[in-house]
Amino acid sequence: MTEASKKVEMWFTERQTPHLAISLRVKETLARETTPYQELAIMETYEFGTLLTLDGIVQTTVKDEFIYHEQMTHVPLHTHPEPKTVLVIGGGDGGIVREALKHPSVEKVVLVDIDERVIEACKKHLPTISCALDDPRVEVRIEDGIRFVKEARNAFDVIIIDSTDPVGPAVGLFTADFYRAVLDALTAEGVVVTQTESPLLNPDMVKRVFETFAGIFPIARVYTAEVPTYPGAIWAITLGSKVHDPLELPAERFRDIETKFYTPWVHMRSFALPRFVEELVQEQRPRFGR
Amino acid sequence: MTEASKKVEMWFTERQTPHLAISLRVKETLARETTPYQELAIMETYEFGTLLTLDGIVQTTVKDEFIYHEQMTHVPLHTHPEPKTVLVIGGGDGGIVREALKHPSVEKVVLVDIDERVIEACKKHLPTISCALDDPRVEVRIEDGIRFVKEARNAFDVIIIDSTDPVGPAVGLFTADFYRAVLDALTAEGVVVTQTESPLLNPDMVKRVFETFAGIFPIARVYTAEVPTYPGAIWAITLGSKVHDPLELPAERFRDIETKFYTPWVHMRSFALPRFVEELVQEQRPRFGR
Repeated sequence: MTEASKKVEMWFTERQTPHLAISLRVKETLARETTPYQELAIMETYEFGTLLTLDGIVQTTVKDEFIYHEQMTHVPLHTHPEPKTVLVIGGGDGGIVREALKHPSVEKVVLVDIDERVIEACKKHLPTISCALDDPRVEVRIEDGIRFVKEARNAFDVIIIDSTDPVGPAVGLFTADFYRAVLDALTAEGVVVTQTESPLLNPDMVKRVFETFAGIFPIARVYTAEVPTYPGAIWAITLGSKVHDPLELPAERFRDIETKFYTPWVHMRSFALPRFVEELVQEQRPRFGR
Repeated sequence: MTEASKKVEMWFTERQTPHLAISLRVKETLARETTPYQELAIMETYEFGTLLTLDGIVQTTVKDEFIYHEQMTHVPLHTHPEPKTVLVIGGGDGGIVREALKHPSVEKVVLVDIDERVIEACKKHLPTISCALDDPRVEVRIEDGIRFVKEARNAFDVIIIDSTDPVGPAVGLFTADFYRAVLDALTAEGVVVTQTESPLLNPDMVKRVFETFAGIFPIARVYTAEVPTYPGAIWAITLGSKVHDPLELPAERFRDIETKFYTPWVHMRSFALPRFVEELVQEQRPRFGR
């Protein structure tokens, strides 16, 4: 299955929109299979290291995964004063689980992914991302995340919705019905985040998810992650919180954890929205400095 | 020269690195010529509107140009308390000139581009970007930017180096020799910025330019712009300043100008560097909030 050759160039191409594509030159295809839910492929690329795609869409790469995984994890986990229980919906690659376990208060992380094959393939081919999945604090459940959340009550301090794009198996993860179930599944000071696509290329989605969150959670905020392999440079993440506002964290809240992207200043940076994003959602005035 | 067709798809592809490519579907080629300095092409794309390329590299698009042009302009112009004279090196599309003229104190903008054909083509095909080039406060000079700067003394409050990538005609714009000439061309409270490539894909460049700036200008800072059509999601911009620190601007400094990206909070956001960028250059602690 190797494509390594000096003369024959193999390229993986994703049409990020009908009219925009990203291409990564491929050294070798490591895995390719049709699971019960989607088409999975793992490739070794020259520029971004090992790449996971589902249904032909880039999910994560070894080179830039830290940006998305750190932003999806450390922002909500710092917004909660002492997160002990964390639920990850989707995210079978394990990147968010790895980041969540860096917080010393975390006692349990439940990962619910509908597709066991994603988890198995990532354990085999993406060890730097999936490395924490066998940690004793982690429980991996192969089942429907929506059903799992609907049955949970007052159970999780933080819920992280690491979904694929809102087509195919992930559609139900973008509904008000599901977010209301998330509210009930959260504990008293609970915090939820969900990936929300590109504000430049998919502004309606960002607006819709924010408005839905604002109607369900006492505090709703939008922040950003800059993911090179996702379209539009800036990726939106929506946060819902029962009590704590991520814009107003005390300095002592920030924990001394090892990161490559996140810092307390990057936390605040992420909520300082470019004007065109602010106009889709709301003004946000994070407090930096002393 | 039209490629519009339902069956025949035309795509422009740029190899952003030898192993990474971006492709934009093209409706129509509007201009294509070999100038004395480079190959120029202007295309109408489906996703990003009109696109300018030089030597096959994306320079700007109508859809996302505001991000780069606003960040290159409003950060240095707000760092200076009352900019009257602005020099733009390169930037023949006129986007930075348009933004600079939004500041009421600005009396004169000199644009020095070595390639008259870029300016002419942008005037014709990119009117929303080049619209300010005929403003009476603007002087367009077709000459070598390096020579122009070397002959200037104490002449400009702000200098903006809007270069192409550091290959071909722009190589000399990335040297310590040139930056020393910039220092002399600046007035007493002068500020300079230069585009500095992708910290993820070209970290050595970011480190080298920052260190060179730090050896020449009393204050050296690095900030970011998120440009979807440039590789790596985050683009670095290096700032040199004689007196004023962009991290410590008084709230009253910010002018009421119309923007789509920049706000006072976005200003501070841009200096809150992700840890991997901070480690290339330096810790920066912008002050936000009240």
